[in-house]
Amino acid sequence: MPEIDLDDPADPGSTAGPEPASEGPAISCVHPGWPVLTGRGEVLRSYALIMANTEYIQFFLTDLRVCVAGDTALVTCTENILSGGPAPQDGDELGPLVGQLVVATNVFRRTPDGWKLWSHHASPVLAETGDDEDEEPSS
Amino acid sequence: MPEIDLDDPADPGSTAGPEPASEGPAISCVHPGWPVLTGRGEVLRSYALIMANTEYIQFFLTDLRVCVAGDTALVTCTENILSGGPAPQDGDELGPLVGQLVVATNVFRRTPDGWKLWSHHASPVLAETGDDEDEEPSS
Repeated sequence: MPEIDLDDPADPGSTAGPEPASEGPAISCVHPGWPVLTGRGEVLRSYALIMANTEYIQFFLTDLRVCVAGDTALVTCTENILSGGPAPQDGDELGPLVGQLVVATNVFRRTPDGWKLWSHHASPVLAETGDDEDEEPSS
Repeated sequence: MPEIDLDDPADPGSTAGPEPASEGPAISCVHPGWPVLTGRGEVLRSYALIMANTEYIQFFLTDLRVCVAGDTALVTCTENILSGGPAPQDGDELGPLVGQLVVATNVFRRTPDGWKLWSHHASPVLAETGDDEDEEPSS
């Protein structure tokens, strides 16, 4: 019986059937306004890039909803984000703080090591939905 | 033993434990630029509203990725959307056609009745990622 190398980076991850618990299925991530990123390496690089350009960031989570079915959990929330970039003139002060309204859908898998994030999709809320149909953003 | 009314609209859906197979866990949906919609009723109303204001819509799906783990499937794709609104002057012709680049994360649950959509999250792609860090949209 052949051995399976769990650390083989050439394995793109199976698209069907059970996965080794220590690896799990391939993860995916969408940052607000970004295309889909797939795989742990690509996702970690994206966070490194974002954080390298972010001097300060704070998340205030609201509207949190958790829905569990079997070994999968779906978590939706609103991310009220306050962030600031690096100081414009290499000074000690932060760049201008910016507020962002983002909604996120997160999918977690229950593993022997606890709940692990499988998918994160975050997107900007461009307008409030209201009674006036004309105010609805189009899809 | 009390009977359970599966059609009870007052039941907001459980957030933990097994669900009746015919009902399943509460669904959620995010249209591009929208907040999170939760529950079948709210989601169906949103599609009725969108379609009432859309004379023509066509989806060209690319970058399709399917990842199955147990009874859950994660499907990501790019939606290349071509859509047109109603004619401006009640004429026979369509309103102007608009192209949109959207990415979607979909979560499906395997049920005795087949695969059912649990979560749909779609968001606009605001800029292409490239080698130039300054071109990356912020998160």
